[in-house]
Amino acid sequence: MRTLTVFLVVQALVAGAAQAQLRTEVQDYVSAHQQQILGELVSLLEIPNIAADRANIRRNAERLREMLARRGFAAEILETSVNPLVFGEMRVPGAQRTLLLYAHYDGQPVNPSGWRQDDPFRPILRDGRLEDGAREITNFLTLDRLPTQARVYARSASDDKSPIVALLAAVDALRSLGRQPTSNLKVILDGEEEAGSRGLVGSMDRYREKYSADVMLILDGPIHASGRPTLTFGARGIVSLDLTVHGAKSDLHSGHYGNWAPNPAMDLARLLASMKDESGRAVVAGFYDDVPPLTPEEKRILEDVPDDPQELMRFFGIARTDKVGASLQEALQYPSLNIRGLSSAYVGAGARTIIPSTATAAIDIRLVQETDPDRMAERVIAHIRGQGFHVIEGEPDDATRARYPRIVSVRRSGGTRAYRSEMTLRESRQLIQALERAWGQPPVRIRTSGGTVPIYPFIEALGFPAISVPVVNFDNNQHSENENLRLDNLWNAVVTFSAILAM
Amino acid sequence: MRTLTVFLVVQALVAGAAQAQLRTEVQDYVSAHQQQILGELVSLLEIPNIAADRANIRRNAERLREMLARRGFAAEILETSVNPLVFGEMRVPGAQRTLLLYAHYDGQPVNPSGWRQDDPFRPILRDGRLEDGAREITNFLTLDRLPTQARVYARSASDDKSPIVALLAAVDALRSLGRQPTSNLKVILDGEEEAGSRGLVGSMDRYREKYSADVMLILDGPIHASGRPTLTFGARGIVSLDLTVHGAKSDLHSGHYGNWAPNPAMDLARLLASMKDESGRAVVAGFYDDVPPLTPEEKRILEDVPDDPQELMRFFGIARTDKVGASLQEALQYPSLNIRGLSSAYVGAGARTIIPSTATAAIDIRLVQETDPDRMAERVIAHIRGQGFHVIEGEPDDATRARYPRIVSVRRSGGTRAYRSEMTLRESRQLIQALERAWGQPPVRIRTSGGTVPIYPFIEALGFPAISVPVVNFDNNQHSENENLRLDNLWNAVVTFSAILAM
Repeated sequence: MRTLTVFLVVQALVAGAAQAQLRTEVQDYVSAHQQQILGELVSLLEIPNIAADRANIRRNAERLREMLARRGFAAEILETSVNPLVFGEMRVPGAQRTLLLYAHYDGQPVNPSGWRQDDPFRPILRDGRLEDGAREITNFLTLDRLPTQARVYARSASDDKSPIVALLAAVDALRSLGRQPTSNLKVILDGEEEAGSRGLVGSMDRYREKYSADVMLILDGPIHASGRPTLTFGARGIVSLDLTVHGAKSDLHSGHYGNWAPNPAMDLARLLASMKDESGRAVVAGFYDDVPPLTPEEKRILEDVPDDPQELMRFFGIARTDKVGASLQEALQYPSLNIRGLSSAYVGAGARTIIPSTATAAIDIRLVQETDPDRMAERVIAHIRGQGFHVIEGEPDDATRARYPRIVSVRRSGGTRAYRSEMTLRESRQLIQALERAWGQPPVRIRTSGGTVPIYPFIEALGFPAISVPVVNFDNNQHSENENLRLDNLWNAVVTFSAILAM
Repeated sequence: MRTLTVFLVVQALVAGAAQAQLRTEVQDYVSAHQQQILGELVSLLEIPNIAADRANIRRNAERLREMLARRGFAAEILETSVNPLVFGEMRVPGAQRTLLLYAHYDGQPVNPSGWRQDDPFRPILRDGRLEDGAREITNFLTLDRLPTQARVYARSASDDKSPIVALLAAVDALRSLGRQPTSNLKVILDGEEEAGSRGLVGSMDRYREKYSADVMLILDGPIHASGRPTLTFGARGIVSLDLTVHGAKSDLHSGHYGNWAPNPAMDLARLLASMKDESGRAVVAGFYDDVPPLTPEEKRILEDVPDDPQELMRFFGIARTDKVGASLQEALQYPSLNIRGLSSAYVGAGARTIIPSTATAAIDIRLVQETDPDRMAERVIAHIRGQGFHVIEGEPDDATRARYPRIVSVRRSGGTRAYRSEMTLRESRQLIQALERAWGQPPVRIRTSGGTVPIYPFIEALGFPAISVPVVNFDNNQHSENENLRLDNLWNAVVTFSAILAM
């Protein structure tokens, strides 16, 4: 027994030393090839990539196929009902597993007037954050050495073209170091993620064989705000409910009928207030019932996330938080009930002295792995009924109006499930270990991230675990004007991806 | 004692008989002069009267001055800071009192596209209600006899030019019958009522002497829905509060921060829900304290109003009412707290998955005679503080945000007092009696009407009672498209005003 233990410890130390050495070697490679890596990214960013721009989307796909083929991938364009996917496969003798590496090459629409540069598709380099007054660095593709804090400003610089370029740079780095990936690699690049990934999800039946693997790695999203390497094991789902409470058929004069005609805005306020207690916990029956208590180990992992709640509260300008779970990370392990919008008649300059005829609340319910969209929506609707409301779809007719003192129309939309890959899975442990060895400290492990991933039906159909490996900077202005990528994050991404390819 | 009683009874019978006779005589006069009365109204309606249309407003004023002068009034145009007033005075030997008769000659703005006629200022006649499919009667100024149910469609047909024409027709009728008014008459015609009556209110200092009288009669507004002659002794006031609850400085991603960052829309819902109980009664401390209980006599008068709550509920499509007071009329004797609008982020197609940064409710508080605007606003604000909110004006600064877990900006506007003239006053009793004698049944007596009268500061400054004598049909589409006057209401108005002039 002792012999075995000693053997395992020695093996771990050797592996750790090997990974630490790999990091140094890849960093040296990156230092020597900064212009090559950045040049490939800039050239890719120069091809506009709004999902609706079919011609340029096709140009992106062709370029990416060529970039994969150049590295020895068997690369092809997979047609879908909408934008094409780009697929590449690299088989490795003696591979320990097959990785399905996902990224997307389309970007969010742009409003050029909000950008502080001529064209979001003509990348520029700044010597830091625009918001901190950083200045543009001209002719940056001719510099010998690029400042570490410099940032590339362009649409998709972070979301999601740089992970693709970093992954291919990692392949190049390993090859230059005379090392083989330890996994078969399958790369799938989505051309419609920002528009809902319909093509990818719909492609499952046609290309299922191609997608088979042991684990899917999602190369998308920002690392933790602390700047430390990050792995994300799950994402919340979502289901939405629009509630419209009905009062009189038309707006009524608040002088003539106030104190007599019921006010649907007040009814709505009472209904919403009935859904939560003062601490922000939902009091809808069964709302948290499907979520088992966190184990001590799970709690420890959540506590390990280096969040700074005081700093976040200062930044957001709030002096209290809701108390669902003991921390932000714990809060994300439970479903949430959120009023995302309210509307009834008018406020401000357009306000009129009326009793409104209707009042509407838009609600979203964020889901976790254990909570089913249908069941959660039904629980909220049962709560609404419990408050004395007659629940309908659409508009109430006269008979309904005559019969029920409280009427609410409920319209459900969305319904994307959450997913989570347990950190105790073999693939999870291997990834955590690879990053810990490469960087000398464990990665930030996010059990469930807040955002909802539209590719959930794809992940579900795959039937194997999916884990996110985010690499870009937290403050990248994702989806917004002046999207940017910190160069240091690009260089570190090559190290992280090399460590994963060699794990 | 018995002699006196007999004398009074006989006197009352004689007076009643005299008034009944007057009614018949005036009705005969009206029958013989329908075309003359209607022609004068049509000719007046043909002058556009939007308050902002200074040139046409001036044309209206000149025409009205001329109409008064023709009846022997000492008539003049009184200049104000905005639109002119028209003033006319007729002194009567042996007058028992002086009446100040108020009406307005401006009208609500028009949107011609909503009207079912070429021009809201080219009156047309229909043989009934437009909504019931009534047809236009062409060349109606040449007909010998006009259908009783016919209606004039034009801006200000009801609000408020027809009471002016009916009043002058009553003066003509009395003269034609060889009778004198029993009161000195002062007529004041407002040119800016629909725009807030600033000119009238501001004219008090300059023309106070001219306005002195024993009672002001407001010739404006519709009669009760039952169609019975109506007197209105008061009107609600109003004060408005806009409440904006603050969450984080900017909208937050509901996935990343839901369950953790406070939601101001939920805070607002809780705050609003805390203000009323399920029956619609405000639970704001002291909200009803200033209003003494209704006496049995007052309750009896309210019960006498021939409202049809079941029919109203059917018409509005509601199956319950708030329970402030035992009836609609009782409800109007108390202040009301009404949410007139709600807004937070977006609902419907524009909804976004965010935690809104703010949520706003527009509230109006309708006032009654006993409730002071400042005190009522302060009570609501004290209630808000009692719910744990820090109350500010404007935007919260960082220090405020850091210190207070719940912050609400309160913006107050409006502040028009209610007024009420007691029905037990001599002038009130005389008016009630005059209408009862003319029509053979007591008028509907409205203790407090729901609408707010912008001329309250004028009434307050006068220092004598003000009572409304509405005459136009209830369903006149006041302030809206296709405003109309039922001809029968015009003819009856001449009778009602004659009875008052001769009381």
